[in-house]
Amino acid sequence: MAKTVGVGLIGLGTVGSAVAERLMSQWELLGERAGITPVLRRVAVRDPAKPRDVELRAIPITDDPFAVVDDPQVAVVVEVMGGTDVAATLVQRALTAGKTVVTANKALVATSGPELWALAAENNAGLWFEAAVGGGLPIIALLRASLRGDIIRSIDAVINGTTNVILTRMRNSGVRLQSALVEAQERGYAEADPSSDVDGWDAAYKLMIMSWLAFESRVSTEAVDRHGITGINRVDLAYLGQLGYTVKLLAHAEADSAGIHLRVRPTAIPDTHALFDVDDSDNAVLITGDLVESVTLRGLGAGGRSTASAVVSDIVNAVRAGDHQPAPPAVVERPMLSDEAVETAGYIRLHISDDPDARALVLQALDDRGSPVVAAEDKPPLEGPHPQLLVLTGVASRAVYDRALETLDALTVVHEIACAMDRIEPA
Amino acid sequence: MAKTVGVGLIGLGTVGSAVAERLMSQWELLGERAGITPVLRRVAVRDPAKPRDVELRAIPITDDPFAVVDDPQVAVVVEVMGGTDVAATLVQRALTAGKTVVTANKALVATSGPELWALAAENNAGLWFEAAVGGGLPIIALLRASLRGDIIRSIDAVINGTTNVILTRMRNSGVRLQSALVEAQERGYAEADPSSDVDGWDAAYKLMIMSWLAFESRVSTEAVDRHGITGINRVDLAYLGQLGYTVKLLAHAEADSAGIHLRVRPTAIPDTHALFDVDDSDNAVLITGDLVESVTLRGLGAGGRSTASAVVSDIVNAVRAGDHQPAPPAVVERPMLSDEAVETAGYIRLHISDDPDARALVLQALDDRGSPVVAAEDKPPLEGPHPQLLVLTGVASRAVYDRALETLDALTVVHEIACAMDRIEPA
Repeated sequence: MAKTVGVGLIGLGTVGSAVAERLMSQWELLGERAGITPVLRRVAVRDPAKPRDVELRAIPITDDPFAVVDDPQVAVVVEVMGGTDVAATLVQRALTAGKTVVTANKALVATSGPELWALAAENNAGLWFEAAVGGGLPIIALLRASLRGDIIRSIDAVINGTTNVILTRMRNSGVRLQSALVEAQERGYAEADPSSDVDGWDAAYKLMIMSWLAFESRVSTEAVDRHGITGINRVDLAYLGQLGYTVKLLAHAEADSAGIHLRVRPTAIPDTHALFDVDDSDNAVLITGDLVESVTLRGLGAGGRSTASAVVSDIVNAVRAGDHQPAPPAVVERPMLSDEAVETAGYIRLHISDDPDARALVLQALDDRGSPVVAAEDKPPLEGPHPQLLVLTGVASRAVYDRALETLDALTVVHEIACAMDRIEPA
Repeated sequence: MAKTVGVGLIGLGTVGSAVAERLMSQWELLGERAGITPVLRRVAVRDPAKPRDVELRAIPITDDPFAVVDDPQVAVVVEVMGGTDVAATLVQRALTAGKTVVTANKALVATSGPELWALAAENNAGLWFEAAVGGGLPIIALLRASLRGDIIRSIDAVINGTTNVILTRMRNSGVRLQSALVEAQERGYAEADPSSDVDGWDAAYKLMIMSWLAFESRVSTEAVDRHGITGINRVDLAYLGQLGYTVKLLAHAEADSAGIHLRVRPTAIPDTHALFDVDDSDNAVLITGDLVESVTLRGLGAGGRSTASAVVSDIVNAVRAGDHQPAPPAVVERPMLSDEAVETAGYIRLHISDDPDARALVLQALDDRGSPVVAAEDKPPLEGPHPQLLVLTGVASRAVYDRALETLDALTVVHEIACAMDRIEPA
């Protein structure tokens, strides 16, 4: 008789339903791959009376997630309920009991991943979280299983589907951010409260998880240089489009012997860049290493089925690993890199006075402050009387760039810095 | 005192040198990642007197690879010597002795992978071959460690750097294949005997390895529908370029419940396709699965350092796995799909007579034989008196497409089928 292992599922939304469906319909295949057949034993949902897309047959449903964790027949706990407080308690309890946890909870893994994995190791349990970063993008498996001989230099990622759907729509159709957001909500690509996505929290959590594995070090949420997309104006997308750029909420991490830096910022990406055409709900991660040069992984970021792909893959790997769950990566303490040590190129849109020297003064001030002017272009006034000036600045440190912007802001010929955005200089 | 594990290296070309260099210069980092420090103990080369780029210090060099395999201090054998006969004997001997083998040998793994991995499992040894497919492209780790819940449907890959460098050069500069080949040889992108690359063997081996892992089944070399690039004319690249296509030596595999199909063929790829812009020595693999939809992995295909990245990553993973080397995938027997079950769209270039009905007859014959005409374009005569006709045919089975070509070939108004190439229909 084939051996089996019990799976408990907490959460039965689009992801949970797709996971349950796969476990029930492909048990033979999954059993062959895992060596032992995973069997769904118990499911917890908020409201057991609610109608579901998935037919659970004889599998008991409860509204108590702790009943799933504590069930002695459940050896693998799948947490796809979301939230952090209850989820954290559930995950800790499962790991302490020596159970394997498979979770899609990015906030939890980003902030407590090292402790949770250590707790798992202490209790001969397992912690798996492929689904926490980019549903259909197996980046966690990649970071766990490959590039083990490389010193990873940087990560660049378009990793938040909601903002990417919004920015793609704004660029392609010229609509305002608010309209694009409402439309994304209607299409199911944005939450009713979209702040986690549009303010960059979601991307920051995913970047923290990837950085933990890639750089074997940890960064607090507060240390991420995080900017959302709420200030993005459709005119900047249009102007940048004319210049050969697209705007993405770019998650970037880099590390060297001096320290580590994580940022999430709207960034102008040139058409020669590997992430330029990652549109809509596509996700992509570009990793550079000292041996491998660059590797790009691309896939669907959103969707119940692609996230379920990640969860079920983790279940199979966890079951196959059995008593030999992977050990947590060593975590090295690294200082955050200072603004002097981190570089960016820039895109600046200014409202300036019609003083004939205004343009020359702005450009001179930028050069003088160490942010070299790569290109400048005049644009007609937008919604007021003042002519506009677009400037592309070359690569400089964040400290220099910020001081240059402060200098501009203080010039009397500058009425307003309407936009100042990071930009990647074409290679 | 830290524990160590002895590594023996067979081959000290560009890859072997980069591997040796990394093992010697990053032993602390690799030791932390692996749990036990891998130490280079012995190296075998063809000619020990030859000057090397890498300084081996006190590490003994021999011209006898068996001395490395048989050295009791060597627990991990790294085979980067190339060739098949001696390499096969060495790998078998190492595995039989319970040693871990890390190899870049694609021909060996493609043709004997399942037996070698089974031999490894019998002897509690390990077989690792990330470097056998796309140096800087960690596709083997991805196929081993991710998508374990998906039913993989297809693989499409641009996986041979040499032909891609040649085709990219022909397209961008309008040179003939022979010139592009000589130039690729001068730049180090093609071997003195280029037949393994230009005839599609290299791509076929890599595709066989990926298919083995993705579809858990095996295919003999002879069963791969393999066509090289030697018949490719620069005019077809130019004409297809005008139509929005680029030509790649595409490695394609697909499987379903009826069977499996592997092919390597020059293929016209539309500009909307994920592999369209994979130029020069870049490699990319696109995998589709029933849950994940599609995942694309892209990186540098060639180069000593990127291949060394794969080898060293394997060494770290193998050492960390210790006595718990991964079990080989179960291999399912599947029949090859027939030509009736495999589909393609087409691009055909014909020399036709100046009979006023010639064009109409060709198009009618194609439609009549079940290869629908999607577009047709007249072109002036090339090097003879006969006008040319380009035809794009829609998706049909290979059997239908081939029969349609036979019909054309028999028409008196057709002087020559100058090119008949697979084409991917834009989505």
